[in-house]
Amino acid sequence: MENPAKLLRVDGKRLWRSLMEIAEIGATPGGGCNRQALTEEDRQGRDLFVRWCREIGCEIRVDRMGNIFARRAGIDNSLPAVITGSHLDTQPTGGKFDGVYGVLAGLEVLRTLEEKGIRTKAPLEVVVWTNEEGARFSPAMVGSGVWAGEFSLEYGHSRVDKAGLSIGQELERIGYLGTEEAQPTPIKAAYEAHIEQGPILENQDQVIGVVTGVQGIRWYDLTFFGTPCHAGPTPMEDRRDPVKAMAWLCERLYGEVRAYSEDARITCGDLRATPGSRNTVPEKVVLALDLRHPMPEGLEHLHRTLYRMVEQVQEASGVAIDIREEWYSPPVAFNKNCIEAVESAVQSLGYSHRRMVSGAGHDSVYVSRVAPASMIFVPCAGGLSHNEAESAEPGHLEMGCNVLLQAMLASAELS
Amino acid sequence: MENPAKLLRVDGKRLWRSLMEIAEIGATPGGGCNRQALTEEDRQGRDLFVRWCREIGCEIRVDRMGNIFARRAGIDNSLPAVITGSHLDTQPTGGKFDGVYGVLAGLEVLRTLEEKGIRTKAPLEVVVWTNEEGARFSPAMVGSGVWAGEFSLEYGHSRVDKAGLSIGQELERIGYLGTEEAQPTPIKAAYEAHIEQGPILENQDQVIGVVTGVQGIRWYDLTFFGTPCHAGPTPMEDRRDPVKAMAWLCERLYGEVRAYSEDARITCGDLRATPGSRNTVPEKVVLALDLRHPMPEGLEHLHRTLYRMVEQVQEASGVAIDIREEWYSPPVAFNKNCIEAVESAVQSLGYSHRRMVSGAGHDSVYVSRVAPASMIFVPCAGGLSHNEAESAEPGHLEMGCNVLLQAMLASAELS
Repeated sequence: MENPAKLLRVDGKRLWRSLMEIAEIGATPGGGCNRQALTEEDRQGRDLFVRWCREIGCEIRVDRMGNIFARRAGIDNSLPAVITGSHLDTQPTGGKFDGVYGVLAGLEVLRTLEEKGIRTKAPLEVVVWTNEEGARFSPAMVGSGVWAGEFSLEYGHSRVDKAGLSIGQELERIGYLGTEEAQPTPIKAAYEAHIEQGPILENQDQVIGVVTGVQGIRWYDLTFFGTPCHAGPTPMEDRRDPVKAMAWLCERLYGEVRAYSEDARITCGDLRATPGSRNTVPEKVVLALDLRHPMPEGLEHLHRTLYRMVEQVQEASGVAIDIREEWYSPPVAFNKNCIEAVESAVQSLGYSHRRMVSGAGHDSVYVSRVAPASMIFVPCAGGLSHNEAESAEPGHLEMGCNVLLQAMLASAELS
Repeated sequence: MENPAKLLRVDGKRLWRSLMEIAEIGATPGGGCNRQALTEEDRQGRDLFVRWCREIGCEIRVDRMGNIFARRAGIDNSLPAVITGSHLDTQPTGGKFDGVYGVLAGLEVLRTLEEKGIRTKAPLEVVVWTNEEGARFSPAMVGSGVWAGEFSLEYGHSRVDKAGLSIGQELERIGYLGTEEAQPTPIKAAYEAHIEQGPILENQDQVIGVVTGVQGIRWYDLTFFGTPCHAGPTPMEDRRDPVKAMAWLCERLYGEVRAYSEDARITCGDLRATPGSRNTVPEKVVLALDLRHPMPEGLEHLHRTLYRMVEQVQEASGVAIDIREEWYSPPVAFNKNCIEAVESAVQSLGYSHRRMVSGAGHDSVYVSRVAPASMIFVPCAGGLSHNEAESAEPGHLEMGCNVLLQAMLASAELS
């Protein structure tokens, strides 16, 4: 006899309404969201999530990194939990789906089970991870990273934003400095639904990405130290111009990365000259650099290329360049069983799909170090993300959520 | 019989003490000055100057651009005045000599004459021009520019800083919104003493620069419009990356300017990416550009090169670039009689000297459009200016001031 749970479907309209309701918190004039980690908007988003979870009888725990765990009891609560989740924080000019979709898809799974009166053998949990974006506090994924043991709690609490406010202070201020230890509890399987944030599914007209792993990422802070001098009288050959050195480095680096491999990525997301007066050669230029590659040896090649070019530009320009590696997230391969659970779910549902590697980092990178994990991608329009215009089809979001439901049921089992 | 005024000398120690006293206003930890236009520090500097001038019996006038005129009566006050002066505002990380030297050298000339009981035929004036630096409010030299008729008073008042505060508002707030019309009164000759802000005098071991003119300057604001997207999943060829386009443009432009002529200058003093998140391709990059050349045709060549390259980079990168010309100050030739008055003064004093063109813009550029004008340069260490470490020899400053005294006496005449 066919398992009746296979016919279970989530309520796509309810999922969409919840997404649109939470999107009002931090809504931007450009149609996106600015709900950066541990701001007042983040607090409001968290409060709404917690209220929704309590309405369906979940128990809420908050750990010392502000990670929120909403637990729906199972039949046998001594069993390891099946968890899902993502993040509620956004980029400064972020969209309505990145992160929040994975959280609310988890909520929708629990709501569906509650509505149908279905209880799983193992308990289920939906998690909100703190500061996934890394936009306000560097590095990214620091909530899941501390929880998974990648960073110490002290390191996590001491990360500061540009105004010098720390994660520890801000957690306390918004009321999300929990008392639970930030460390793993027994977990049977972990899934994360997310928009793809790239154009591959859309271009290939497929609905579900079965995510087998994540690109490796290295983050660097570069500072170019110039000698401030007057824009007029100082001969060009007597200058130490940090803008010139920066332009030189970037121009060559973009070319090298492009030439090396089409899987390689280079992004200079932040850049600033100080003191910033038009008729004075700047004292310094700071540059935040992000390099990515799906293979460890590829990322290592980019890393070595960067250091070699910094050396060359330093020597040729006379501009001292300080380079610090801020973060390294090695390429990740997800758990075979979890990948197969997602693939079986999508096959039984009959949706078009493909296996793929994630270009973006996600909390699942750290979760996968301490628990079996994988991810489910759905398309987003034009592959645009980290952009106020980020958008996704309600039907695709519903299908991704159905895949999540089936994968979680398969892992948590029915009686 | 030798004219006894030829033996008159200023008090170099008194000049130095005044320079060091005013340098305490806005003093920076790095040993420089941050006394930006129309700030509280600028107000304090102006108040001190006014007090010093009143102590030696000067009459003070303030015009509607906040320019301050301290007048020492002559024997015949119907004669056109002989004026000198410069500015008290500084760069954000400015030094102790740029501008303020020219103001206090003028004050020292008046103090010397007062002390010796010498009255000139024509009246003498020392002027403080508003917002010469252009650091807080763009463009530079706006106080002398309005006064000389280059800009309207309305334009001058409506210039805003990065916080949106206008020159008109800020003049009123600090109590220097005067009632005099900002327009020239009859002037026989105008002199401005200044540090060279470049290395030529020092390198050639000369003390006085007889300044025959000023380089032409063009200022531009460039905005590179990218498409924000996620640093990981978005393939490089699908991106519109404003940092890449900016680096490309700058790299080529520096090369072209250098190749064109050793008299050409390019400076990118301000540069910023927004929103400035490491793992997002920026939405835009803004760049403040300063191009200079001593000859009109040279500056025109640089201007055309810039526009041609913007066109090329725009086409090749797909990144839209907005370019606006913010200011144009054509190359200036100073008045022959004033140049010769300075040259005669320095020859009679027996100081080493050379004729030279100023690389920096100065208030004398605008003054020279409505009155006979020239400038006197003294060396600064290493040619450094717009830098907290800017420094000059007390002996050189004294010699420059003696040249100013003699040139002013020659123009104003003794009875």
